[in-house]
Amino acid sequence: MTPEQFRQHGHQLIDLIADYRQRVGEHPVMAQVEPGYLKAALPEQAPQQGEPFAAILDDVLQQVMPGLSHWQHPDFYGYFPSNGTLSSVLGDFLSTGLGVLGLSWQSSPALSELEEVTLDWLRQLLGLSPQWSGVIQDTASTSTLVALISARERSSGYALARGGLQSQDKPLIVYVSAQAHSSVDKAALLAGFGRDNIRQIPTDEHFALRPEALQAAIDQDLADGNQPCAVVATLGTTATTALDPLRGIGDIAQARGVWLHVDAAMAGSAMILPECRWMWDGIELADSLVVNAHKWLGVAFDCSLYYVRDPQHLIRVMSTNPSYLQSSVDGEVKNLRDWGIPLGRRFRALKLWFMLRSEGVEALQQRLRRDLDNARWLAEQVGAAPDWELLAPVRLQTLCLRHRPTTLDGDALDAHTRGWADRLNASGKAYVTPATLDGRWMVRVSVGALPTERADVERLWANLQAVVKAPVRG
Amino acid sequence: MTPEQFRQHGHQLIDLIADYRQRVGEHPVMAQVEPGYLKAALPEQAPQQGEPFAAILDDVLQQVMPGLSHWQHPDFYGYFPSNGTLSSVLGDFLSTGLGVLGLSWQSSPALSELEEVTLDWLRQLLGLSPQWSGVIQDTASTSTLVALISARERSSGYALARGGLQSQDKPLIVYVSAQAHSSVDKAALLAGFGRDNIRQIPTDEHFALRPEALQAAIDQDLADGNQPCAVVATLGTTATTALDPLRGIGDIAQARGVWLHVDAAMAGSAMILPECRWMWDGIELADSLVVNAHKWLGVAFDCSLYYVRDPQHLIRVMSTNPSYLQSSVDGEVKNLRDWGIPLGRRFRALKLWFMLRSEGVEALQQRLRRDLDNARWLAEQVGAAPDWELLAPVRLQTLCLRHRPTTLDGDALDAHTRGWADRLNASGKAYVTPATLDGRWMVRVSVGALPTERADVERLWANLQAVVKAPVRG
Ligand SMILES: Cc1ncc(COP(=O)(O)O)c(C=O)c1O
Ligand SMILES: Cc1ncc(COP(=O)(O)O)c(C=O)c1O
Repeated sequence: MTPEQFRQHGHQLIDLIADYRQRVGEHPVMAQVEPGYLKAALPEQAPQQGEPFAAILDDVLQQVMPGLSHWQHPDFYGYFPSNGTLSSVLGDFLSTGLGVLGLSWQSSPALSELEEVTLDWLRQLLGLSPQWSGVIQDTASTSTLVALISARERSSGYALARGGLQSQDKPLIVYVSAQAHSSVDKAALLAGFGRDNIRQIPTDEHFALRPEALQAAIDQDLADGNQPCAVVATLGTTATTALDPLRGIGDIAQARGVWLHVDAAMAGSAMILPECRWMWDGIELADSLVVNAHKWLGVAFDCSLYYVRDPQHLIRVMSTNPSYLQSSVDGEVKNLRDWGIPLGRRFRALKLWFMLRSEGVEALQQRLRRDLDNARWLAEQVGAAPDWELLAPVRLQTLCLRHRPTTLDGDALDAHTRGWADRLNASGKAYVTPATLDGRWMVRVSVGALPTERADVERLWANLQAVVKAPVRG
Repeated sequence: MTPEQFRQHGHQLIDLIADYRQRVGEHPVMAQVEPGYLKAALPEQAPQQGEPFAAILDDVLQQVMPGLSHWQHPDFYGYFPSNGTLSSVLGDFLSTGLGVLGLSWQSSPALSELEEVTLDWLRQLLGLSPQWSGVIQDTASTSTLVALISARERSSGYALARGGLQSQDKPLIVYVSAQAHSSVDKAALLAGFGRDNIRQIPTDEHFALRPEALQAAIDQDLADGNQPCAVVATLGTTATTALDPLRGIGDIAQARGVWLHVDAAMAGSAMILPECRWMWDGIELADSLVVNAHKWLGVAFDCSLYYVRDPQHLIRVMSTNPSYLQSSVDGEVKNLRDWGIPLGRRFRALKLWFMLRSEGVEALQQRLRRDLDNARWLAEQVGAAPDWELLAPVRLQTLCLRHRPTTLDGDALDAHTRGWADRLNASGKAYVTPATLDGRWMVRVSVGALPTERADVERLWANLQAVVKAPVRG
């Protein structure tokens, strides 16, 4: 495709995307297709000859579109918001269009420097002190893996330079709560700790990690001759948006030389609101933290902000310095390949920069406040309605709810809950996420998709009330 | 930014990118800026109020552009080609514009299914048998980490479910060649093996791993009570594009139950040419392999194709199954979160699909053959010129060369080599990569940027001959 053809087709594609975003609400929010629908429809081999761009766009509309669940849809309340604001989308387009890579500062200086600048902007917006240095990772999953590997190496005196985790005498122990995201467990297993060395710390009645229980577990491990290594605290757990008490946890971690990593993947976005900052009181005690700018905040996926207090622990673990990547300015610059796992890196700061500049901080704050209000409004309706219950405090924009007619309990209640959630999702009128809490099914409603306004939430509430009685028609 | 504003600004951005690609050759190929140039130019804080889009685009042109080293430039011969064909760029735009995520099949069925289909198309194009299943990872670095973690777990009988690498009796050993990419060493260290448990296997006179040496090292480890775990072979090493002999290595690996991972990050693209397939004779003996579609092949970064022979080893290590990610079709579908580290996933198959359909296989093959021809032509010139030498066989599109006047040797020769390479890069007329080979500096010329034609390579040769004598004027 020549630049001239790109110009022509690019304009067509911009219109397609603009139309899509304008009318996304007309699609059923959850895809209504059967497994294998697309595999069956597509040829078994790549074409030998190029095809007209119109044919490709046609297949996008006819074949791909029906198989999308629409995350940018006003009726999307699933999982968590993964907002791609259109300003950040344009920043990402520019990144892809320029096609430059940040292996080293020299391989595109602007890429590294803009990342440093925008991560420092975000640091200030999140209310973090200047002690933090940031870098963009793809996801919170990867960031937590990076954190746990850094912790592992700090605790073992950088055993990676010798026998690695294989030469560890005292087992290194990782502490998490049962409410931690599945990626935390996965990260600990990938880092080689082993499940026997992951302690699940009990939570309180609001699903937050209990510092006394952490303290007790650490003391027990010390008594048993194990070596406490890292604790992962969550700000905004996935199930209920519970807030682990960072100050209490941080004090314990610091006293014991245990690495504190804070998974603020979801709730971190709210820290741009001064009125929410109390939630992460104690954050300055952490060693590392991750905030997913690609969730509620609105930067097009992928854009996880990973901050560390002492970059040396990161760089010592991640750095490589083969001759073909060296340059004469290496002493003066930040080489981002030393800040994460991949060597190749996109120019991801552009999408952050475009969003911050195009929207401005106040508009972002307003949008988040809108969502908090909408969630509060819905919580009031649910709280006041007979036969409905809220299962956890609504700290931010996620509600955990259940329709509980007095006649139903136990497995029958579970069946009812899953039944109406599936009916609602299958109707295409809303996308909600069934999940378990204390061993029973409930439904998570995560408010905060970009286009979701109060009227949409009102419609959701009407649909919820209807669907628990009878199927909603699609 | 509303969809209508997006439409307007999107058109502006398409034109900016089309202009950029059309006229990229007019920029100095390597950025001519000083460390800190952009940090000094930008405000210290994000703006409170949104700014006009025109102001952002203006800063892109005035501030960002001068700080780019241009990977899509006809005079780019650095590192390796990281081609972003414009058809794949449009596929990536669509992915970002749609803003859907592939946590599970249900969270956007088309995302998972198109990835399965396009990876199978590529499998066939690369001449791989149907035994391989593929998935897109961000980079080869990550893919190799995933491979070594899978190997670690297979060798330890899935110790991650128990004491992890910390409970390993016999040390697990990883074998690599000294010519392996820095990401291989890094992956082994991140996976916890420890440097003492990485064996550097000697290479032959063409920088390819010697199977007898591998065999000897494995036997020695067995005799020492260690447990051979994984060998990483490289198809197309970074320094010289050397080809490790896969059949010999694979036979040894299979006989000893050692995981064979093949890093074909660079040379894998050439496997779409039937005449190059001999290079990976024996590939079917591997357990995993990675090909960077985001290098020479031309898919906009990031797009690493990771293939495994038995997905169970991958899934057992990577899978998570929290309640909020379960769906009724899980038994019938591929949930891609179980195939890699991150939970969130972009719709990356679109850029692969757009490129394959828009260009067609034959055009891709022709472009690669063009680059092979150009590299051969340049090799002939260098080989025939007095005072120039080629330091390794030109297997594909990378040349390792040196200007060696009879008067120069040792450190003086090194100084000469680095001197002219730096002068050439600083001139903005070409981007080449100085690197060491056998402890001495040479210059890598990696042919194969998208717009590089024979005339460009001829100009490069003229510039090379001029710069070794005197500075080229910028
Ligand atoms: C608390 C928390 N941690 C981690 C993640 C994982 O995020 P990612 O997809 O960026 O790995 C999520 C959401 O998916 C989350 O809510
Ligand atoms: C042989 C080889 N392996 C691995 C890599 C790393 O690639 P990535 O940036 O995708 O991790 C490269 C190039 O950078 C390479 O040439």
